[in-house]
Amino acid sequence: MIIVMKEGAHQSQIDEVVHLLETKGLGVHISQGEEKTIVGVIGPKERVRELPVESMPGVEKVVIVSNPFKLASRAFHPQDTLVTVGNHVVGGGDPTIIAGPCSVESLEQILEVAHAVKKSGAHMLRGGAFKPRSSPYSFQGLGETGLKYLAEAREQTGLPIVSEVMEIDALPLMCEYVDVLQIGARNMQNYPLLRAVGKTQMPVLLKRGLAATMEEWLMSAEYILSEGNPNVILCERGIRTFETYTRNTLDLNAVPVVQHLSHLPILVDPSHGVGKWQYVTAMARAGIAAGAHGLIVEVHPNPKEALSDGEQSLTLDSFDTMVQEVRRISAAMNIDEAIYSPHR
Amino acid sequence: MIIVMKEGAHQSQIDEVVHLLETKGLGVHISQGEEKTIVGVIGPKERVRELPVESMPGVEKVVIVSNPFKLASRAFHPQDTLVTVGNHVVGGGDPTIIAGPCSVESLEQILEVAHAVKKSGAHMLRGGAFKPRSSPYSFQGLGETGLKYLAEAREQTGLPIVSEVMEIDALPLMCEYVDVLQIGARNMQNYPLLRAVGKTQMPVLLKRGLAATMEEWLMSAEYILSEGNPNVILCERGIRTFETYTRNTLDLNAVPVVQHLSHLPILVDPSHGVGKWQYVTAMARAGIAAGAHGLIVEVHPNPKEALSDGEQSLTLDSFDTMVQEVRRISAAMNIDEAIYSPHR
Amino acid sequence: MIIVMKEGAHQSQIDEVVHLLETKGLGVHISQGEEKTIVGVIGPKERVRELPVESMPGVEKVVIVSNPFKLASRAFHPQDTLVTVGNHVVGGGDPTIIAGPCSVESLEQILEVAHAVKKSGAHMLRGGAFKPRSSPYSFQGLGETGLKYLAEAREQTGLPIVSEVMEIDALPLMCEYVDVLQIGARNMQNYPLLRAVGKTQMPVLLKRGLAATMEEWLMSAEYILSEGNPNVILCERGIRTFETYTRNTLDLNAVPVVQHLSHLPILVDPSHGVGKWQYVTAMARAGIAAGAHGLIVEVHPNPKEALSDGEQSLTLDSFDTMVQEVRRISAAMNIDEAIYSPHR
Amino acid sequence: MIIVMKEGAHQSQIDEVVHLLETKGLGVHISQGEEKTIVGVIGPKERVRELPVESMPGVEKVVIVSNPFKLASRAFHPQDTLVTVGNHVVGGGDPTIIAGPCSVESLEQILEVAHAVKKSGAHMLRGGAFKPRSSPYSFQGLGETGLKYLAEAREQTGLPIVSEVMEIDALPLMCEYVDVLQIGARNMQNYPLLRAVGKTQMPVLLKRGLAATMEEWLMSAEYILSEGNPNVILCERGIRTFETYTRNTLDLNAVPVVQHLSHLPILVDPSHGVGKWQYVTAMARAGIAAGAHGLIVEVHPNPKEALSDGEQSLTLDSFDTMVQEVRRISAAMNIDEAIYSPHR
Repeated sequence: MIIVMKEGAHQSQIDEVVHLLETKGLGVHISQGEEKTIVGVIGPKERVRELPVESMPGVEKVVIVSNPFKLASRAFHPQDTLVTVGNHVVGGGDPTIIAGPCSVESLEQILEVAHAVKKSGAHMLRGGAFKPRSSPYSFQGLGETGLKYLAEAREQTGLPIVSEVMEIDALPLMCEYVDVLQIGARNMQNYPLLRAVGKTQMPVLLKRGLAATMEEWLMSAEYILSEGNPNVILCERGIRTFETYTRNTLDLNAVPVVQHLSHLPILVDPSHGVGKWQYVTAMARAGIAAGAHGLIVEVHPNPKEALSDGEQSLTLDSFDTMVQEVRRISAAMNIDEAIYSPHR
Repeated sequence: MIIVMKEGAHQSQIDEVVHLLETKGLGVHISQGEEKTIVGVIGPKERVRELPVESMPGVEKVVIVSNPFKLASRAFHPQDTLVTVGNHVVGGGDPTIIAGPCSVESLEQILEVAHAVKKSGAHMLRGGAFKPRSSPYSFQGLGETGLKYLAEAREQTGLPIVSEVMEIDALPLMCEYVDVLQIGARNMQNYPLLRAVGKTQMPVLLKRGLAATMEEWLMSAEYILSEGNPNVILCERGIRTFETYTRNTLDLNAVPVVQHLSHLPILVDPSHGVGKWQYVTAMARAGIAAGAHGLIVEVHPNPKEALSDGEQSLTLDSFDTMVQEVRRISAAMNIDEAIYSPHR
Repeated sequence: MIIVMKEGAHQSQIDEVVHLLETKGLGVHISQGEEKTIVGVIGPKERVRELPVESMPGVEKVVIVSNPFKLASRAFHPQDTLVTVGNHVVGGGDPTIIAGPCSVESLEQILEVAHAVKKSGAHMLRGGAFKPRSSPYSFQGLGETGLKYLAEAREQTGLPIVSEVMEIDALPLMCEYVDVLQIGARNMQNYPLLRAVGKTQMPVLLKRGLAATMEEWLMSAEYILSEGNPNVILCERGIRTFETYTRNTLDLNAVPVVQHLSHLPILVDPSHGVGKWQYVTAMARAGIAAGAHGLIVEVHPNPKEALSDGEQSLTLDSFDTMVQEVRRISAAMNIDEAIYSPHR
Repeated sequence: MIIVMKEGAHQSQIDEVVHLLETKGLGVHISQGEEKTIVGVIGPKERVRELPVESMPGVEKVVIVSNPFKLASRAFHPQDTLVTVGNHVVGGGDPTIIAGPCSVESLEQILEVAHAVKKSGAHMLRGGAFKPRSSPYSFQGLGETGLKYLAEAREQTGLPIVSEVMEIDALPLMCEYVDVLQIGARNMQNYPLLRAVGKTQMPVLLKRGLAATMEEWLMSAEYILSEGNPNVILCERGIRTFETYTRNTLDLNAVPVVQHLSHLPILVDPSHGVGKWQYVTAMARAGIAAGAHGLIVEVHPNPKEALSDGEQSLTLDSFDTMVQEVRRISAAMNIDEAIYSPHR
């Protein structure tokens, strides 16, 4: 942390700042510039960040120098993390493709999707059993019945299951049925839930919150990692901006940036990111070209009959086309240098 | 819901839309314009909203006509809701003032603040015992010990207690100690938690999420109301925008708008809203002038020693000044007409 | 400027940074921390800001310490600037009230408004003769005819005229007819236009751009000031956020913050800020309570017949009520301490 | 336009709305639902949009059904527009690559860049001679001298020149030297300037404003088109969001959406979009994969000595690599179906 004193700050004000820091057991390094005095603070960053120095008299600005995340940072763990799900590895060579309906609606529906997406090349099956809906009157998912249908689909196809967990109390049930626990965007800062999934060793798909900076997102990953679960997969799914034509604004900039800052694998969800099925394939291609480790896509055998998110679901046929297009992009991406350490 | 067909949509496409609607048991009303056909849909809005008609061939646009919230709407409940906490009424005449530290840090601290803010005119005491922190390494609150200190402060001052509940499992404990359950911004769309507080009859202070539209915020209130708890108090606390000088952007526009749309009382949190103590008093005055039913403000006896949010906490003295200024504004607000039904 | 080197940066990388700075004639001050080296840069800030040091090998982060504006800063000019328009002073005691229609539509219309708002207590008349419209097919204003009608209204009422200038070529004409040149939000970063109005001595009302940070806004003021025109009045008129219920998000936080950073007077435009007339009076009261030096409000004798912005225009009667309410707030604001130097 | 009346609106209120519409010469179509009455309005959309009906008593909501742009819309002009610059066609098969420094700094610099980017495969040379800078104290460009250097570079390499025009008065000079007139993000709604370039037949590169919706952007294109200049090239260059790690948020969603709404070609500017050179290549690949017709990229022989935008400039070598990677993506994009009319 660096503390910039105001021009003309009194010596007594500088002394007061230094005194506070020393009281807290922190080291201090003072630089006397021509116009301003700068106080460098040395010590563990968790403690440094807590200090409300900015409100002290004579202080102009406080600058946090280091990133707040540690276990999630590439500095701490230079190699890419690989997360194994069944016999598929997320973050390895080929892009991971996760597909399925927004909600599990019936056994027939989920089986039809599962067989079709498997045939098209998907590696995992997604489907919501417990749904976070902005209205209490909307369809909330089939609950445990939905989980059973998912398990049956896995039984028949071998595809591992990804499904959202919304509350701690449902965690044992979820762990019984699913292979990857999804934390939805609305729960990205539900810290008790993050800690709880951190206490399992289950792979966790952590979606970015609608208004979360990349730093906050990585801090949420840090919650899970700090409890001992290293199997975190990040997922960019669109942020909220002023643009209203698209449901959200898929922020593909996050792909190379997060790969620079962190070792965790990152997927892209073009379905929620853009919110209209017409644009999903283009954004899926773009996500892979940006360097993402894979995709999670909503697919429904009959989108216009879907109980949720029909607007953004691909049909089985258009998903098949999407996979082919994405694979062509991926094959063209055989690039020599690592993305996170570009030369210049 | 209104469905606008594309120019030149085929009759078969219109028929397909009508067929889908009728299958779902919905009424249909067709208007044939010169260029476009418009299909009006009649039926319960919950069902209407689920239909993914926008993706059907020949459909240009789907327009949702009605607000999605019902119990929270002023149309449903024209009179202002009053929420009684101890012997204070939120939403009645005088502005409610809730004050206290971000976190309960010690018995001495909370007692000092409680006595001081009571003397300055506060109606309730706030203080965090369980803190949602973006870093797992930051101070997370004193937990139940903090609640006991708060109870002791209430015992000594008579001030009811407002404190945040972060998870369902902590709810019985919270209900034992506090008078108002706060739902923080990060949990505004934690639906299981909303349902759980909705099953109590405790007053709930529901903060607006950082990226929540007013409509989504009122839908979260609807979750609580729909479980049978009518005691919901809304709280505007700043939204996330591109501006970085302030911590958040306190959106005071929400005050008159929410009062137009809903009967629920609304408070303003200038401390989180602007994020720097220097500007808190100005925004507190502005909040009351916009018509808010009260304020919730962070106050600390020694902000520079605070374990959290020191930057935005008022001292005991500056809080006292703030209360006086706010009261002068409130006294000047004795306006004849109701805010929510302005003449023209 | 402070340059933070990465942990483990090589001495040669530090040397390269220092060499670049010295080549540019800048002073350097090095602090060797335990983990990181910090390089302080001393010299004129304009030159310092141009350096692309952040992309150099071994550099982690570059921190700009000082504000980029100078003439606009309160550090440079501690006393509040007062701008005189006719015999009214903006930034002095009573809040300035500017009112009038979005567009001048006819002589009758502008005369009716002018007489009415004068009677209600307005200090200046606003009205657009040249209108920036997002559609080329929308009404673009009456042009010079509109200016003549405004001049006639001034003749009859004595109210000085505020009107928008959209291009340099129109400046001589505008200066002939109006008393205050308005720079609209869309032109806040039209630098040639800013320089051109800076070369006059006319009062300039500089609206904040829809996506402008407060710093960028003050930099645009700096353009005008640096050409020798000190008569700049700032105007907060709403920023663009994700919220769609309101047309814009009036950012009243800007009022105390700008008064802290700058000596220039600041007005609030609640009409554009919230975009619906029902909420204009509440936001006008809030603006004054936040400490603004005045208001600019759209008023139309018959909003539903307005050629532009009818949705957000007050009627003559509701404007009269607004002025009374605002005056009560203002009278209650007789506060001892200056807003920009709050105690603690 | 569709007018939704409130539940329980009086017949007299409906009559008043209908009367206003008929007075304006507009057709009216009334649908009486069970709860609400809906009034459809028939007539030219320019006139319909001007009506402030939403503020009339009994009106709940007004819905604009059609897009406001006409000449820019794909409905009006179903085929892709191709813009010819020299002997290169923008919008045709291969992606257009425009490269060069932010600012022209010297003859040597621009010649070095021009020869290098030509060799790497660029189709045009970019370079600023007149620079819009947020500070009046920053380097503002070499002016006409810069244009002469650009012309010399064209002479030597055959590359057409792209450069920004900031004001109408400079237009004759710009037209003398450059091949494509760039309208910068800050001037996207400088309507007099848009009209002025619309009166030429020069190709215009229209950048999206930082806070511009796609609809507003296309309306700015409409200004140019409506003056008779069909040669408009759109350019996505990042919007402003809450995320601060990147300079802007490159919104690649705009690529497929704009191609759906409009026939105009669209390029992507990853340099401004993400703002740090490390991520430019990844976003360039993603832009092409999303379906963009090309790229405009900042390249500098020695970024750390650049007078502006050094942080986001590629070196000559890294640009060469970028072109190769982008071409591989482009080659993989040989997709059967048109992007703007996806099947389902």
